[in-house]
Amino acid sequence: MPIPGPGYAITARVEAPASASAAGDLAVAVGRVGGVVTAFDVVEAHTGAIVVDISCNALNEDHATEITEALDALAGVTVRKVSDRTFLLHLGGKLEVQSKVSLRNRDDLSRAYTPGVARVCQAIAANPADARRLTIKRNTVAVVTDGSAVLGLGNLGAAAAMPVMEGKAALFKRFAGVDAWPVCLDTQDTEEIIRTVQVIAPAYGGINLEDIAAPRCFEIEARLREMLDIPVFHDDQHGTAVVVLAALRNALRVVGKKLADCRIVVCGVGAAGSAIIRLLQSGEPGDVLAVDIDGIVHPGRPGLDANLTWIAEHTNAEGVSGTLADALVAADVFIGVSAPNLFGAAEAATMADDAIVFALANPDPEIDPAVAQQHAAIVATGRSDYPNQINNVLAFPGVFRGLLDAQAHDITDRMLLAASAAIADVVTEPNPSFIVPSVFDSAVAPAVAEAVRAAAQRDRDDQEATTPGRATPSDTTMTT
Amino acid sequence: MPIPGPGYAITARVEAPASASAAGDLAVAVGRVGGVVTAFDVVEAHTGAIVVDISCNALNEDHATEITEALDALAGVTVRKVSDRTFLLHLGGKLEVQSKVSLRNRDDLSRAYTPGVARVCQAIAANPADARRLTIKRNTVAVVTDGSAVLGLGNLGAAAAMPVMEGKAALFKRFAGVDAWPVCLDTQDTEEIIRTVQVIAPAYGGINLEDIAAPRCFEIEARLREMLDIPVFHDDQHGTAVVVLAALRNALRVVGKKLADCRIVVCGVGAAGSAIIRLLQSGEPGDVLAVDIDGIVHPGRPGLDANLTWIAEHTNAEGVSGTLADALVAADVFIGVSAPNLFGAAEAATMADDAIVFALANPDPEIDPAVAQQHAAIVATGRSDYPNQINNVLAFPGVFRGLLDAQAHDITDRMLLAASAAIADVVTEPNPSFIVPSVFDSAVAPAVAEAVRAAAQRDRDDQEATTPGRATPSDTTMTT
Repeated sequence: MPIPGPGYAITARVEAPASASAAGDLAVAVGRVGGVVTAFDVVEAHTGAIVVDISCNALNEDHATEITEALDALAGVTVRKVSDRTFLLHLGGKLEVQSKVSLRNRDDLSRAYTPGVARVCQAIAANPADARRLTIKRNTVAVVTDGSAVLGLGNLGAAAAMPVMEGKAALFKRFAGVDAWPVCLDTQDTEEIIRTVQVIAPAYGGINLEDIAAPRCFEIEARLREMLDIPVFHDDQHGTAVVVLAALRNALRVVGKKLADCRIVVCGVGAAGSAIIRLLQSGEPGDVLAVDIDGIVHPGRPGLDANLTWIAEHTNAEGVSGTLADALVAADVFIGVSAPNLFGAAEAATMADDAIVFALANPDPEIDPAVAQQHAAIVATGRSDYPNQINNVLAFPGVFRGLLDAQAHDITDRMLLAASAAIADVVTEPNPSFIVPSVFDSAVAPAVAEAVRAAAQRDRDDQEATTPGRATPSDTTMTT
Repeated sequence: MPIPGPGYAITARVEAPASASAAGDLAVAVGRVGGVVTAFDVVEAHTGAIVVDISCNALNEDHATEITEALDALAGVTVRKVSDRTFLLHLGGKLEVQSKVSLRNRDDLSRAYTPGVARVCQAIAANPADARRLTIKRNTVAVVTDGSAVLGLGNLGAAAAMPVMEGKAALFKRFAGVDAWPVCLDTQDTEEIIRTVQVIAPAYGGINLEDIAAPRCFEIEARLREMLDIPVFHDDQHGTAVVVLAALRNALRVVGKKLADCRIVVCGVGAAGSAIIRLLQSGEPGDVLAVDIDGIVHPGRPGLDANLTWIAEHTNAEGVSGTLADALVAADVFIGVSAPNLFGAAEAATMADDAIVFALANPDPEIDPAVAQQHAAIVATGRSDYPNQINNVLAFPGVFRGLLDAQAHDITDRMLLAASAAIADVVTEPNPSFIVPSVFDSAVAPAVAEAVRAAAQRDRDDQEATTPGRATPSDTTMTT
């Protein structure tokens, strides 16, 4: 059963009779209809009456209304206005652009702008690689979406995707000091998206694709990786895969199993599921069964697209067909990135001993986590109100910090695997309720960044061994 | 003769014999080759030797080398290293993206990002106008270039244009609190530029086009104005025109002439010259003669493009032809936005009494300002080392502040004229050396913004008078 959370928090300004029991009466009224009081501030006190701001978490908008009505129904109490704290926080947007240089006087102006800036432009024109030294490109990432798969909400379009992209940019700064900028594209045509990103790329040191629907996202990413000289990372795919693999690594440590001995069911083969399967392959698992709405993916299934064909060829060693329930029998691991409430206790009970269940559909998981916990040794979800939250925030800030510091031109599986191991290793002693670090653990992003930098260096060494004479950047140690 | 400026400032770290005359010897050596010492700091002092950072302004890179060599040639003196202060300032770029919301704990995260952000996205999807309330669109401007006309340097391309666009964004923030972001396009195809700006527009409340070559810039601006519901402003055109008209208004006050009685020569009919001519027309001047490399523009001249045809039809009441020298005879005003050293004392002497000369080519004006001052009552340039600097910084920050506050969908001549008058009126008592305010006068941007807001309201009132029932935005007073 869901609990009221801060995503639906309201603040009601209430006028109430001045009495010793006023605060208690109000708090009791909120609690009686299931609201959770988080703050209580007296803002005015008159003879006979007080005005109070009472903040509380609700389940959803109807519940917020119910709480407001419960307050208003108290004798002598009037609700003056109700503010939605989430909307208040978003007023005017969540980002601002700051100048890093001071502009106090003419000397400042003539260095940062004309005439001094002309020499800097000429230096970049003469040596384009200097753009990474003399412009924001060194530390800046584009967060690009077409608004076609916004969170779990679907195709809301470019403007409505902005609050998510702004939030993502805020997280980039907060966790890794990366300057990220929302690029919300008013087109959902694959060719136009690719061309637009190519055209705007000069300002950026990396591209983070976000909330772009499958299968379009696969082609967009592949083509951009081919044409751009900066790394392109679709977070819904690779960010999720990196964190899932980190969690799986620690979960297997806890239950004492090896990946090579495990049968793993991946449910959902959109952006996240496909990337999880691909990254899993590099660890040589016992077997993987991919399941979608049409059941287990196998080579003989009709109507497979390019993505599913690849998956059919690289999973399901025994070529079985069947339903999700069939797949779960004797499975060691379930990884769900699909839809709510797909199975229950009966199916969970058929899994192998010491089963691992990652039910990541948001906000409602593939199986009720409380039910899963009765049958599995370890349960993880995408939610913050259960242990083991699988959250991309653990990956993308540190990944891009590492890519930018290394002045990487590409992103490779070696980097993703290194990032995944780094996240897992932040947890020194995993246990069933602690297989991934907290998103607020300040050790995570630096560890991920260092792992990605080291992997980039190994990639570069390998490349130099095969193509002698290619220069390495001279100033990889300079970061802003 | 140019003087050393801070655009070419160096700091030399020098080891010199410790003596009472050390500082003097070093400063004299710099001065002897024409350098200007701006700072002197002892960084180490040993027995017998000191290490000093000596900062000085130079004319150009060769001159900086000459200064360094002059220091190195002193007996016992060694130059350890030389830093270019302009390049140092640009290291890592000039902008950063900051979060306006705090992200300290899970509650913050669940309001700014998932799950809370989902409701904000849904609100915008249901009511797209809410994007101006709930995203950065309210306060954010794209500074767009294709790198085809970077400063006076020509076609340097997108990457090399970045330092200018970053500088522009820094000025937007410094002078008007506007969040501006560099959008440097790796294409110079008119159709692709238009389509790319249209596709990225959802995030922005306004578009500032910058350093796009004429005549391409005219079509790009016109088409984008037609298709977008946010104001589009080509600063090289309209920013320049607004400031030139402000300066002209005050110059005419000083010499006691009326615009309707003046013959005005506009030399250069690229982006800036064309916009100046168009905005001048609204003030009903006596006559305007447009001059380009082929002489005076008149309807009979062969090879006129669309822009020049319009100019030929709206200027040159008597249909004269001839050279720049012919145009200058008896002219009251010269406005040059063209090329260096086009005329001298002889031609200036043929102008009318109390002539006004705006020689704005940068860095070398159409006529040496010292020569012009001998023949004209008022001289203005684009340079900061003479009085009356015509600088777009006086216009664009306040113009966009006003446009964003008014949630304007378009930009109109009424707004541009209001902005121009507001700039002029900041100077309460103009004199020949003071016809425009200082770029650091903090009264300018608010006055311009207020003028633009008021003009937007008048436009809206006019529109409502003709199209009853159109709603006005309810929250124009809310600014970030």
